[in-house]
Amino acid sequence: MEIATLAAQLDGQLNPPDLKLEITGVGTMEEATADQITFLANPKYLAKLPDCRAGAILVAPGLDAPDLRIPRIEVAHPYYAFARAIALFHSPPPPKPGIHPTVILGEGVELGENVTMGAYVVVGDRARIGDHVVIHPHCAIYADAVIGAGSILHSHVAIREGVILGERVIVQNGAVIGGDGFGFVPMPDGTFYKILQAGTVTLGDDVEIQALSAIDRATIGTTTIGPGTKVDNLVQVGHGCKIGDHTLLCGQVGLAGSTTVGNHVILAGQVGAAGHLTIGDRVQVGASSGINHSIPPNTQVSGYPAIDHKLWLRVSAALKLLPDLIQRVRRLERG
Amino acid sequence: MEIATLAAQLDGQLNPPDLKLEITGVGTMEEATADQITFLANPKYLAKLPDCRAGAILVAPGLDAPDLRIPRIEVAHPYYAFARAIALFHSPPPPKPGIHPTVILGEGVELGENVTMGAYVVVGDRARIGDHVVIHPHCAIYADAVIGAGSILHSHVAIREGVILGERVIVQNGAVIGGDGFGFVPMPDGTFYKILQAGTVTLGDDVEIQALSAIDRATIGTTTIGPGTKVDNLVQVGHGCKIGDHTLLCGQVGLAGSTTVGNHVILAGQVGAAGHLTIGDRVQVGASSGINHSIPPNTQVSGYPAIDHKLWLRVSAALKLLPDLIQRVRRLERG
Amino acid sequence: MEIATLAAQLDGQLNPPDLKLEITGVGTMEEATADQITFLANPKYLAKLPDCRAGAILVAPGLDAPDLRIPRIEVAHPYYAFARAIALFHSPPPPKPGIHPTVILGEGVELGENVTMGAYVVVGDRARIGDHVVIHPHCAIYADAVIGAGSILHSHVAIREGVILGERVIVQNGAVIGGDGFGFVPMPDGTFYKILQAGTVTLGDDVEIQALSAIDRATIGTTTIGPGTKVDNLVQVGHGCKIGDHTLLCGQVGLAGSTTVGNHVILAGQVGAAGHLTIGDRVQVGASSGINHSIPPNTQVSGYPAIDHKLWLRVSAALKLLPDLIQRVRRLERG
Repeated sequence: MEIATLAAQLDGQLNPPDLKLEITGVGTMEEATADQITFLANPKYLAKLPDCRAGAILVAPGLDAPDLRIPRIEVAHPYYAFARAIALFHSPPPPKPGIHPTVILGEGVELGENVTMGAYVVVGDRARIGDHVVIHPHCAIYADAVIGAGSILHSHVAIREGVILGERVIVQNGAVIGGDGFGFVPMPDGTFYKILQAGTVTLGDDVEIQALSAIDRATIGTTTIGPGTKVDNLVQVGHGCKIGDHTLLCGQVGLAGSTTVGNHVILAGQVGAAGHLTIGDRVQVGASSGINHSIPPNTQVSGYPAIDHKLWLRVSAALKLLPDLIQRVRRLERG
Repeated sequence: MEIATLAAQLDGQLNPPDLKLEITGVGTMEEATADQITFLANPKYLAKLPDCRAGAILVAPGLDAPDLRIPRIEVAHPYYAFARAIALFHSPPPPKPGIHPTVILGEGVELGENVTMGAYVVVGDRARIGDHVVIHPHCAIYADAVIGAGSILHSHVAIREGVILGERVIVQNGAVIGGDGFGFVPMPDGTFYKILQAGTVTLGDDVEIQALSAIDRATIGTTTIGPGTKVDNLVQVGHGCKIGDHTLLCGQVGLAGSTTVGNHVILAGQVGAAGHLTIGDRVQVGASSGINHSIPPNTQVSGYPAIDHKLWLRVSAALKLLPDLIQRVRRLERG
Repeated sequence: MEIATLAAQLDGQLNPPDLKLEITGVGTMEEATADQITFLANPKYLAKLPDCRAGAILVAPGLDAPDLRIPRIEVAHPYYAFARAIALFHSPPPPKPGIHPTVILGEGVELGENVTMGAYVVVGDRARIGDHVVIHPHCAIYADAVIGAGSILHSHVAIREGVILGERVIVQNGAVIGGDGFGFVPMPDGTFYKILQAGTVTLGDDVEIQALSAIDRATIGTTTIGPGTKVDNLVQVGHGCKIGDHTLLCGQVGLAGSTTVGNHVILAGQVGAAGHLTIGDRVQVGASSGINHSIPPNTQVSGYPAIDHKLWLRVSAALKLLPDLIQRVRRLERG
């Protein structure tokens, strides 16, 4: 694509404006070649510019980089423009359109228009599949499930009975939506009595669940994940959790049952949270932290148990001094 | 269901005894409506009573709650009664009975009576499937596996070669029972030589393995999980582990190889344990703790490395004071 | 097998050299019976010898164990010899040879010689499957994927579009190679814009990925895992990671995006690493540690945040003393 065309498509200003250059793809600052475009969104990567071999770069207008010798396209939001550029140059191989002859549909299944189902998909009775839904091979949709229009399910996904997916939901391979919650009554004789998990799961519009995550159905009522929330690989969301909108649950996060998580929250990788607590709106939790009490909105916490993030940074730095500190106190005690 | 009938079915005493009320379902204290029944098992939730809209409530006899205005059914074990009530009002859509025509059975497979197998189930040679077993679509049962009577396997479960499941075992979607253990010989040249994992896995009666958990086969001998033990989502049980009876492994617990876990143990979410150690009977380990040495029976531990739980609570509280403590010691040293 | 034959096959010296004994299998020091062979590789297990019932034992030449009364085969590397012995006595039931009639092959698929595919395997367009590859039931190979010669895929594995596996790669059940990376642009209105994950994944020769692990495709470019590296169950490798050769990622390790890991590294169970950092060659990281900065080669670190392993041992021991230390400082302050 001619770079002027690319600039126009990305709503950007080409500089120099009359540059002629065929752009054939996108690349990182380290790997982009002379016919590719890259981007710079964070000033801390300015130091990479001298080694960058890209043919052009997406930057914010007025970037103060005197030694930037690469032609630029100035855009309001370079990272967003880069994401759009990727979609201009790449597209995954499209699934075979239509319903594969090996698909097994239960009784009373409702199919929208232009539905794609790959080989060996199994759909239970009364399930409803919206328009333009794409279901890759080997998915199992249980009875009474609802898949909203425009959703994409990758291979080996299980959507359990009665689970409801909003529109444009993406589920990566092997994820399980609506498996039984971990609910057992401890009996006086030390055994556990299984509580029938009679609730369900609802995923809002534009939710993405990545590979091999498990979103458990509620015991009664509904486990909910709000619109726009993104859930990374290998995450567990326990029964009865209420996750807000536009929240990120990063890789291997684990939420016990009945945890409430607000909107615009970020739980970094491997964060764990005990059940029956509330994590407020816009909370950010550092990687590997453990939450055992509710967290007020608009706070940043880290550690286990999680404390104020800045205090945790100081505690972490201080920890290394602890063995020595004990010696010093001993010396003081000796007088 | 008329509430008097419900009381009788749950072995409870209705109070007031002559109440007429049609109960149509169950609900939590927060969400139950006027035609639903809820429960109160833990006195700490008494505070929720004033806002509770339930039509009736399951409580222990003699509950001291002067302002309890909701009709009650008194039962010896309210949480258990609630679990039974759920099963009276709900049942998941039953799987299609019989063996789906797309099921592929190997040579010498033995099927019990009244076995249900969904679409595209694959069963290897000589596998034995007990009476009343339900296998949902897309399960793969490898050769020589044994599935005990009354067991239920949800979609996409893999039961590897020679693995033995007891009776009434439940395996949720996507779990892998008997995958190869992580066993390699470090060679002098820095490479790893794979050790054939020649052992197997045995799950006792009434075990439940939830979604996407991996229970590895032993190198030689058997990885065992005792009767009544429940394993939550995304748990790893390494090769050669011996897990006792009526134990709970909560979400994302990870056990390295050859770990021994006793009976009636609770490992909370994300607990990790190194291999070749023993966790005694009735041990309780706090969430996200790391076990790197054996734990004696009847103890509660937390932290990483795990220490006595009460000491850990004190350490956790003290940690916040550490940066300040260093200043104070410095001041003392200055005199 | 006659023990003299076994000794010869394992390149060992039988002692006593004229012993006649039929060996029928292998066992651990605790469980081996009189017709089985066991091994002793680590002197710390010498204490188990008096209770060992094995018929023979694999040991290093010149082992100083005066009370070793069990016949021995002396070998240069007892653990390796034991692994070879297992393979002499056991072999998993072989998969049915050939392409099962239910396999669905896309257009332009290239199959090598002697390929085995179980029931319901689905292969996308233009995928290339090398010689002697074994693919168990229910695998989904997306379009344009390449599976190197001699590789083995267990059931329910997903190999996404364009992913490249080297030779003799083993993928255990349910693993997902090439799922979308967790890449979203945070937009000014608080929503997330999905970045098309246009890159891929390359696994080197002799890599093993165990059950239910997720290796994400790069946004652009390639997520790579070097030859000989072994990845345990439930591991997440984020988009754009570069993992070196002959490295071990143990159970439930989680690597965020663009992490670089060197050669001969060991990340113990549940280790987490933030993105955009480098873990040097031959680094060893203790279980459950959290890496939030680059780690120089040849170091051992533990803890969260990870510090020098020996310092961490001292800090861990000192932590228990912290509550008491605070009291002691208070006392000193009082004078």
